[in-house]
Amino acid sequence: MSSQKLKIAACQMKVVPGHPDINTKKIITCIREAKENGDDIIIFPEMAIPGYLLSDEWENEAFLVDCLSYNEDIVHASGDIMVVWGNVDIDKNHPGEDGRIRRFNTAFVAQNGEMIGKFYKTLHPDYREFDDDRYFYSARKLAQDEKIPIKDFLQPLQTEINGKHRKIGITLCEDMWSQDYSISPIDLILENGAEFIINISCSPWTWRKNNKRHQVVREHLKNHPVPFIYVNNIGIQNNGKNIFLFEGNTTFYHPDGSLYKIAKSYEECSLRGSIFSEEKEVHENPLLSKKIDHEELLQGLLYGIKNFFKSIKAEKVVIGLSGGVDSSLSAYLLAKALGPDRVFGVNMPSQYNSEITKDIARKLAEKLGIYYAIIPIQEAYDFTEKQLESTQFESLDGSEDKINLELDTLDKENIQARDRGGRVLAGIASALNAVFVNNGNKSETAIGYATLYGDINGALAPIADLYKNEIYSLCRHINEIEEKPIFPKKLFEIPPSAELSAEQNIEEGKGDPLYFPYHDKLFRAFIEFRLDPEDILEMYIDGSLLEKLKIEEGVIETYFENNEKLILDLEDKWRKFKISYFKRIQAPPIIAVSRRAFGFDLRESQNGVHFTRRYQKLKKRLLKID
Amino acid sequence: MSSQKLKIAACQMKVVPGHPDINTKKIITCIREAKENGDDIIIFPEMAIPGYLLSDEWENEAFLVDCLSYNEDIVHASGDIMVVWGNVDIDKNHPGEDGRIRRFNTAFVAQNGEMIGKFYKTLHPDYREFDDDRYFYSARKLAQDEKIPIKDFLQPLQTEINGKHRKIGITLCEDMWSQDYSISPIDLILENGAEFIINISCSPWTWRKNNKRHQVVREHLKNHPVPFIYVNNIGIQNNGKNIFLFEGNTTFYHPDGSLYKIAKSYEECSLRGSIFSEEKEVHENPLLSKKIDHEELLQGLLYGIKNFFKSIKAEKVVIGLSGGVDSSLSAYLLAKALGPDRVFGVNMPSQYNSEITKDIARKLAEKLGIYYAIIPIQEAYDFTEKQLESTQFESLDGSEDKINLELDTLDKENIQARDRGGRVLAGIASALNAVFVNNGNKSETAIGYATLYGDINGALAPIADLYKNEIYSLCRHINEIEEKPIFPKKLFEIPPSAELSAEQNIEEGKGDPLYFPYHDKLFRAFIEFRLDPEDILEMYIDGSLLEKLKIEEGVIETYFENNEKLILDLEDKWRKFKISYFKRIQAPPIIAVSRRAFGFDLRESQNGVHFTRRYQKLKKRLLKID
Repeated sequence: MSSQKLKIAACQMKVVPGHPDINTKKIITCIREAKENGDDIIIFPEMAIPGYLLSDEWENEAFLVDCLSYNEDIVHASGDIMVVWGNVDIDKNHPGEDGRIRRFNTAFVAQNGEMIGKFYKTLHPDYREFDDDRYFYSARKLAQDEKIPIKDFLQPLQTEINGKHRKIGITLCEDMWSQDYSISPIDLILENGAEFIINISCSPWTWRKNNKRHQVVREHLKNHPVPFIYVNNIGIQNNGKNIFLFEGNTTFYHPDGSLYKIAKSYEECSLRGSIFSEEKEVHENPLLSKKIDHEELLQGLLYGIKNFFKSIKAEKVVIGLSGGVDSSLSAYLLAKALGPDRVFGVNMPSQYNSEITKDIARKLAEKLGIYYAIIPIQEAYDFTEKQLESTQFESLDGSEDKINLELDTLDKENIQARDRGGRVLAGIASALNAVFVNNGNKSETAIGYATLYGDINGALAPIADLYKNEIYSLCRHINEIEEKPIFPKKLFEIPPSAELSAEQNIEEGKGDPLYFPYHDKLFRAFIEFRLDPEDILEMYIDGSLLEKLKIEEGVIETYFENNEKLILDLEDKWRKFKISYFKRIQAPPIIAVSRRAFGFDLRESQNGVHFTRRYQKLKKRLLKID
Repeated sequence: MSSQKLKIAACQMKVVPGHPDINTKKIITCIREAKENGDDIIIFPEMAIPGYLLSDEWENEAFLVDCLSYNEDIVHASGDIMVVWGNVDIDKNHPGEDGRIRRFNTAFVAQNGEMIGKFYKTLHPDYREFDDDRYFYSARKLAQDEKIPIKDFLQPLQTEINGKHRKIGITLCEDMWSQDYSISPIDLILENGAEFIINISCSPWTWRKNNKRHQVVREHLKNHPVPFIYVNNIGIQNNGKNIFLFEGNTTFYHPDGSLYKIAKSYEECSLRGSIFSEEKEVHENPLLSKKIDHEELLQGLLYGIKNFFKSIKAEKVVIGLSGGVDSSLSAYLLAKALGPDRVFGVNMPSQYNSEITKDIARKLAEKLGIYYAIIPIQEAYDFTEKQLESTQFESLDGSEDKINLELDTLDKENIQARDRGGRVLAGIASALNAVFVNNGNKSETAIGYATLYGDINGALAPIADLYKNEIYSLCRHINEIEEKPIFPKKLFEIPPSAELSAEQNIEEGKGDPLYFPYHDKLFRAFIEFRLDPEDILEMYIDGSLLEKLKIEEGVIETYFENNEKLILDLEDKWRKFKISYFKRIQAPPIIAVSRRAFGFDLRESQNGVHFTRRYQKLKKRLLKID
């Protein structure tokens, strides 16, 4: 009892959303191990029992009661170790504001076979994939209802560990990300005497978020230097339209905010450390670099693909291989994540497909060692063209009016795309008891440059959160890290093309109607920065466009010979971005890796197009119209 | 000036979401008319300028500033009439909790060319289609930040009208629906001396909601009898996955809560009434009956279809006519809403389609006077079958392993469905520059009894919020109200069937594997009541199942010979309900008419299936397993 030291196990577990039985079983196993190891405290992530992204399953009361019942198992298992874990709590005496049972996102604490505390989440994120106020009642609302100042409400847990009285600040996820809120739960609980902070989280990976978190923690500890333990889960969770990656990155911080221990990404483990000890181990501050970004991105995509197919119990996957860069990257990821013997590549040529791309498709399949077949679509296409063009509608209103169908170029292109996606790929996947994937990228998705019921089809869109230039860039990275290059040089040289008509003949250098060096940046401004055409024009006029959107010098001049052309394109792309949402409504789930993914991360309505009054003014000024 | 009377115009305008220019133009016109009419006050709905269901467009700051700029036009137009309207307000000095600009759902008030007040919404709904806390900062949070008790915060507007000082309680939508909240803004503002209440709303139609509202108002006025004016918009608004109907039902209430005036549903108008007058006109309390429910449902669906196609600028619509009840109802609704000359019916027989249904399809098209064509799919189907069955995959891993494709019955059924939806209907719609519809019903949608990229395709699912029995029931209602019956008797006699194989031969009385009199009620329990299989078993055991789910006597016995069969089916349907979400992710927008529609009204995750511990216990008890 002489030591003040506390031995802590931070359990970076893989949480399976919606399956409290599986999660609790794992928790109990980890508690047993921690006891054997002589740990004083074991900590599990936020919502470790139910999972977090459950959508409206939070309204299923029987499920909630079921989740809650697992608390007893944990309390029972606790013994002399203190256990902190996330679960949902309910209040049967007060309704939630949705008229259903009131729910709380809660950190429970058990010790010596008893429940000794529970703490409700104070700050509720309601942006991107987060909907905490939809599902939970916050400590903030409770304090207001009980007319208690929030500072008085946020008290540390007081308990005895190894004969010593302790004050422990227990918080949940967003409680530490308080910069945009009017209160800071971490600061308040520290002012109320917490000797160390536990933050249990269910926090998805996004670009450079962990580095941001290290800063945030340092900021909190500046005036109150105490140990800080951040416990996050691994796994994937989804809201249907998006799949989010949880990499863990469970971290112990020293009182000065420096890093003590960090768990490996995507690895299930109990990270162990001691606080109030002489231990001075310091973990290096993680670096930031494009290379590390690529590594993290690749690791995340592979983890997401592997776990998504596992979660839907899909053993085999079918993929259309066009010989273009998107499907090539997609095939690589599938083969790497699932193993080549589970991947079935299909090349589906029509008269418009070049020998170049057919050759790339075959060679890529060989390099990956996957299954491969060629299924031409020309004959089926010709039949459909003939059948439709010979179709006549008769009006049955007595007028004897007749209408014949005529197909234009776009109609014909779309027939090919639907033949591939809706007839061939879906038919093969069905026959193999497999699923198939969508190979779309974010640039195409942004303006609906894809055919609904054609190439938009698929059970998963693994790379739809990557802009075209990011696709190329990731392919180059893969070529560098693989023993032998996977993607042939030719792939980087041919123009991106759908090859659906003579107008898209890559051998004549023709391809997709997008200027990726410019449009990728423009789309990111729309999607991730939430900018309006008004903002784009404003920046263009004041000369800050290149810098703010990180567009390379000379790019604008390359594509637009004058202001009028730039404005025409801007309006065209904004219009397509808005209108093409009708396609995204019916698009498959996307693995979210950016700061804003299409799907249920970026929520949209079919409301057409609007240009602001200020936009109209700026346009007139630029075009010198009075 | 002797009269105390106030003449009020309640403007039930059609709000076009995302188009502040269009909405403001209408507002200005109505203000002009009200001035000519000598009104004292004119009131517009909640979010009359921007619209309400804008999804993440609320993050577009240029759009917000644009919306706000239209306030000036209204203030300028106000003159000596007092104007109350809904718009978004922003606070550039404080961030929203999403780190973007802080926004408020606001009621603005102008008079004599000046802005004289603004009131923020206090209660924020975050259920079903509502996401107020995602988008707006509430008066409640503001009061907590400013450390002001909420009652002190909610003060009436004080102003002079016709030389008399007035205290007016101005509230927004949910502020009156406070039964599940810990505070009641209406009651507090009445306690603070409001002489009458204005509630501006953007409140979608749902089953019997208006009657419920009349009760709620009476309850509020019980202790504080004052005039109450409820102003709601008409139109449709959407969140992509769902289309919501706004019928208006703008209402003046007498101080005793009785009805004074009610605007007609879906009609744009300025409803005029006088308060503090001798006017004793009483509007009858609306009746409740199944017949009225049918009328409202039909009116809503027609309004929704008409306005949806208008909003997406679709002139023509293509519909597959199978001769079954779902497509028949769908075709009727389209012809009625859009006019028969805009509807193109297509019958797409294979070898499995009976003469009976082909005949029904043709006769229905004749009755409706729409365009019609027959496009057989057998030849295309046979080609696909042959092509797939002759396909061989070779493994390119060096093993020379080969895999041939084999099609089972289900594979073959799905090929037919995809041929119809993905090849024929999509091809025709494309050639006609039209869209096509999905004819699925809610019962099928609940368990994914439909083919993805086949009959699930479409730009709109007009009847996917109606269970199979509601489809029949609405068809009967239509037959009653139309001069001559639309739907032939035969349609009600044949079993519902997909007619995709010999196993679904209606001439042998075979059809879909669903017991609609039972399953419709079971699905409603899952979807709308949010019940779990545990609850179903619990009710079954305690004998309350029939009553609680409104299942008819004898139905259970008809379909299930013993408890084991019932349990098998219950687990099968729960599993299918959960798993089939993967199809709904890619399904088209649904017009919401129930208390919970699939789409973004009921939010789901792909999390597989879970049975609670209590369910397992009840099951064992029922099957007498130890």
